[in-house]
Amino acid sequence: MARILKDPGVGYKSNRNAQRLIINGSSNVKHINRARTIDDLYTYLINISWGLFLAYVLLGYVLINAIFGFVYLLIGVQEFQIVKGSLWEDFIHLFFFSAQTITTVGYGAIAPNGVWAGVISSLEALVGLMSFSFITGLLYGRFSKPKAKIKFSDHIVVRDFEDTRALMFRVMNKRTNMMIEPELNAIMSITEKNETGEFNRAFYQLNLERNKIMYLPTMWTLVHKMDKESPLYKYSKEELEALEVEIYILFQYHEETFNQKLYQLHSYDFSQLKIDYKFDVSYDFDEDGFTIIDHHKLNDIKKI
Amino acid sequence: MARILKDPGVGYKSNRNAQRLIINGSSNVKHINRARTIDDLYTYLINISWGLFLAYVLLGYVLINAIFGFVYLLIGVQEFQIVKGSLWEDFIHLFFFSAQTITTVGYGAIAPNGVWAGVISSLEALVGLMSFSFITGLLYGRFSKPKAKIKFSDHIVVRDFEDTRALMFRVMNKRTNMMIEPELNAIMSITEKNETGEFNRAFYQLNLERNKIMYLPTMWTLVHKMDKESPLYKYSKEELEALEVEIYILFQYHEETFNQKLYQLHSYDFSQLKIDYKFDVSYDFDEDGFTIIDHHKLNDIKKI
Amino acid sequence: MARILKDPGVGYKSNRNAQRLIINGSSNVKHINRARTIDDLYTYLINISWGLFLAYVLLGYVLINAIFGFVYLLIGVQEFQIVKGSLWEDFIHLFFFSAQTITTVGYGAIAPNGVWAGVISSLEALVGLMSFSFITGLLYGRFSKPKAKIKFSDHIVVRDFEDTRALMFRVMNKRTNMMIEPELNAIMSITEKNETGEFNRAFYQLNLERNKIMYLPTMWTLVHKMDKESPLYKYSKEELEALEVEIYILFQYHEETFNQKLYQLHSYDFSQLKIDYKFDVSYDFDEDGFTIIDHHKLNDIKKI
Amino acid sequence: MARILKDPGVGYKSNRNAQRLIINGSSNVKHINRARTIDDLYTYLINISWGLFLAYVLLGYVLINAIFGFVYLLIGVQEFQIVKGSLWEDFIHLFFFSAQTITTVGYGAIAPNGVWAGVISSLEALVGLMSFSFITGLLYGRFSKPKAKIKFSDHIVVRDFEDTRALMFRVMNKRTNMMIEPELNAIMSITEKNETGEFNRAFYQLNLERNKIMYLPTMWTLVHKMDKESPLYKYSKEELEALEVEIYILFQYHEETFNQKLYQLHSYDFSQLKIDYKFDVSYDFDEDGFTIIDHHKLNDIKKI
Repeated sequence: MARILKDPGVGYKSNRNAQRLIINGSSNVKHINRARTIDDLYTYLINISWGLFLAYVLLGYVLINAIFGFVYLLIGVQEFQIVKGSLWEDFIHLFFFSAQTITTVGYGAIAPNGVWAGVISSLEALVGLMSFSFITGLLYGRFSKPKAKIKFSDHIVVRDFEDTRALMFRVMNKRTNMMIEPELNAIMSITEKNETGEFNRAFYQLNLERNKIMYLPTMWTLVHKMDKESPLYKYSKEELEALEVEIYILFQYHEETFNQKLYQLHSYDFSQLKIDYKFDVSYDFDEDGFTIIDHHKLNDIKKI
Repeated sequence: MARILKDPGVGYKSNRNAQRLIINGSSNVKHINRARTIDDLYTYLINISWGLFLAYVLLGYVLINAIFGFVYLLIGVQEFQIVKGSLWEDFIHLFFFSAQTITTVGYGAIAPNGVWAGVISSLEALVGLMSFSFITGLLYGRFSKPKAKIKFSDHIVVRDFEDTRALMFRVMNKRTNMMIEPELNAIMSITEKNETGEFNRAFYQLNLERNKIMYLPTMWTLVHKMDKESPLYKYSKEELEALEVEIYILFQYHEETFNQKLYQLHSYDFSQLKIDYKFDVSYDFDEDGFTIIDHHKLNDIKKI
Repeated sequence: MARILKDPGVGYKSNRNAQRLIINGSSNVKHINRARTIDDLYTYLINISWGLFLAYVLLGYVLINAIFGFVYLLIGVQEFQIVKGSLWEDFIHLFFFSAQTITTVGYGAIAPNGVWAGVISSLEALVGLMSFSFITGLLYGRFSKPKAKIKFSDHIVVRDFEDTRALMFRVMNKRTNMMIEPELNAIMSITEKNETGEFNRAFYQLNLERNKIMYLPTMWTLVHKMDKESPLYKYSKEELEALEVEIYILFQYHEETFNQKLYQLHSYDFSQLKIDYKFDVSYDFDEDGFTIIDHHKLNDIKKI
Repeated sequence: MARILKDPGVGYKSNRNAQRLIINGSSNVKHINRARTIDDLYTYLINISWGLFLAYVLLGYVLINAIFGFVYLLIGVQEFQIVKGSLWEDFIHLFFFSAQTITTVGYGAIAPNGVWAGVISSLEALVGLMSFSFITGLLYGRFSKPKAKIKFSDHIVVRDFEDTRALMFRVMNKRTNMMIEPELNAIMSITEKNETGEFNRAFYQLNLERNKIMYLPTMWTLVHKMDKESPLYKYSKEELEALEVEIYILFQYHEETFNQKLYQLHSYDFSQLKIDYKFDVSYDFDEDGFTIIDHHKLNDIKKI
């Protein structure tokens, strides 16, 4: 008999049919009354798209130069060794002077002469050095941030296997290097409506024939045998298709390029189930005997 | 019977009622005769508040420019292509020249001409590059330092549970991402006064129904069953309320944003105990079936 | 009897004699239809040779200055306070101005005067700061990237050992520090041609007398006893020499210098097999009793 | 009976009494015929003293400016907008110009005018940006490098303990934060001279009453019971004192400040043995009940 898991960190019941807890590898939970901290800013800046990140940088650059340009205008154009023109011309000159100061280019065609010009421009150079290092740190952090690059098959198949049935899905490395010590753990939740109309969720460990290998050069097919130990044992094909099942997966491996252990979340539900299908062979050999993996074949299944 | 732990790294007895060893997740132990090293400086600069850190930077910047400004004054203003003024005017000019050199802005309106001016300003530029990289490294290190963001419930509750009683507390992720593979280990210390007036401490592993889960989207209630195996089994409600108990917790999980395993210390004592209370439901569902977690509800308990 | 492994992540059979999956510690698998991402660029730039990396940097530097020089030429030389010469002379001047701007040197002998010159040069300084930090981040990342420095013996030997035979190979640390907690896991694949001319591969865990030690100061000889549990037990010397065997190894240890767990892949096949040979002693002692390890001796074997 | 370890990664015998393999937490093995790589340079620059590191930086700075200054001299002083003086004066000026270029200060009082001056100075600015980032990366890497800060007691004691004898030593955290999940593993080697005058070494796992704790606020006393399972069981006090014993220790814990698992090697030999001594109490309490740890008390032992 399948053993029900206690407190897997999610609720046992709901008054309505609940959404999946994980979508696209991210939490699908809504938070309210959450206190924000400076760490959220870091997380935000690391995770936004490159376009948005660069737009923020450019906007910030224009803004800070406008502010310093305005302050320099208040100090007076005569403290910067430039010939006085219209207000707008002065501002433009001082805006450029600010840009030359904050980036530490400092051509010197415009240069501070008086005390206030010296104080504020010294300060701006300090601000510039510190904020640019921060921005460029973020930029490099974004580029070098390790991300797990696992692709899961679109479908789960159920087929006859050995003396029983088995549920299978497969995974592939999107990179060309080897995944070292990949390991996959999964929980299955089965939701059933009780007499009072509430939805009860039961959670089970999803037992796999093998859930850890030494390294993975090609694709890896995960096999859950639907034998007596499986919570799915008792269901017929038709019942399986109608069943509300979610599979929550945690995949981990050591990534060679970044020398770090990486994790990837994934979830399936039974709308992705294909009964009496099997996966196509995942690898081939070329004329010289080299193993070939075709990334387009991950999702190839065929009717048995 | 509960098994007493040997040498958990703290003392078994004290001549007075000792303070908790952990307060706010940090060590509450006083060190004397400790040798300080350069590492302590790094730790200090990483952990101080942002305001203090920036104040140090600004102060250091003013100080180092004052020092170099003074050295340039000793060399003589004529080596810097500026018109001699009062001593104060000269110093101000050379202070700004120092700031322009150390930040590598180098406008050039003031520029070194003689040999000593050249030597010292070349050196200052080197010092500037090295110290600024260090400061900005610290600045970025402070920002990107991973911190465990676990919140523990204010109270521990004791309530009837299954065929016995149980002690419970709960934890929540302050971030919106999933905590991966959270694990909680705890030690309980019970202090009792012996006949001679000394305080004896006995340490026990705090057994939990479940102390590791795959990932945690919402809140997690930790359950210690007060059955025959528990050191708390023999105490009545009244005795429990009067008992000197401390619970030392080590919480660990993998943080997705930083790709690191993070640890958080915590401690409870029995002044935080609520008997015959239970925790409110920790999650809800909105109209679309999304799971909702309200961060204000972590501490909601109610009388049974 | 030796137990066959299920799904080690590679295929069980091939229509031809397949190449080894790992060559020189890297995946020997060909990928087709793979989607490229920006991460591939990072991986590429981290892994290319130093010469190529520096060539890219230099090329990029010349190219970007040529582009900006050309843009400045379009704006007009009169906006940069230089005396107009031939088109080529103007371009050369503006090319140098661009280099002075993008590196933030900014001598100021050439300096922007008009609005467009100011806008583009301000932008170039921003581009410069951001791209240089990125390049230098890469440069430092390349230098400080931890790499496992394990050397495997060129040969595997088979010799009589205790009451049976044993297969042995040895490993050595190329660095002078201690390898902490080295651990070696290995899989053996035996390929045999069946009646229909297909090649069947069977995979086995390679059992070792000891596969993990506390730390490794010198060399380490790994010993697989070819007893009844071994898949090689049934083969005679002559059969062993003709056998198609591959050994896939995953070596891991904690590297002190980088404070990281490092992994190294390796593979052997039986063309590297030497029967009735043994390894020479791997260490010696000098007059003062210091242990000596001679890196040239790793591969020293002698006929028994 | 004590079980002898197979292949602990060091030799079983020597023709002379060998030196300890670990001294001051570092490998005491001599390497010959070792191929050097660029990684050795990184390791070297990270591990040398601060004084030596800064001396290298200063030396490199002077040297590179001298080289570029000489190249500029070859190009000719007229390409740098300076008035020609003696050869030495020209060189000094161009040396300073080089320093202003490589640090990107670029005052502009001296500025390149001709084509070759422009080419070489553009190149120098590129070299400067890249090498300075590298140096400052090293500088920051040196500062933020996590180092295990464990102090071991100077002596090992042997004393009567429970119904047998025990060997004990203790460790302390040199920092004020908690050590998380400290774990200690040890191997004991006993060297005995055989009839032919050779030294035979036998290796044993050193069994400890407890070798892992949750966290360590004060000191930790490690206890090896010298019962029937111990290789030391059979020796009398006098024999113990004369015995050639080395204990090789691997200590590991999670360091909070750096969020990394750190390792520290250590070794004892029996010249550090004190028989019939015991360690003083390692902690105290002040008037407010705070636990106090006195770093000077680590080595306090007293005769029983």
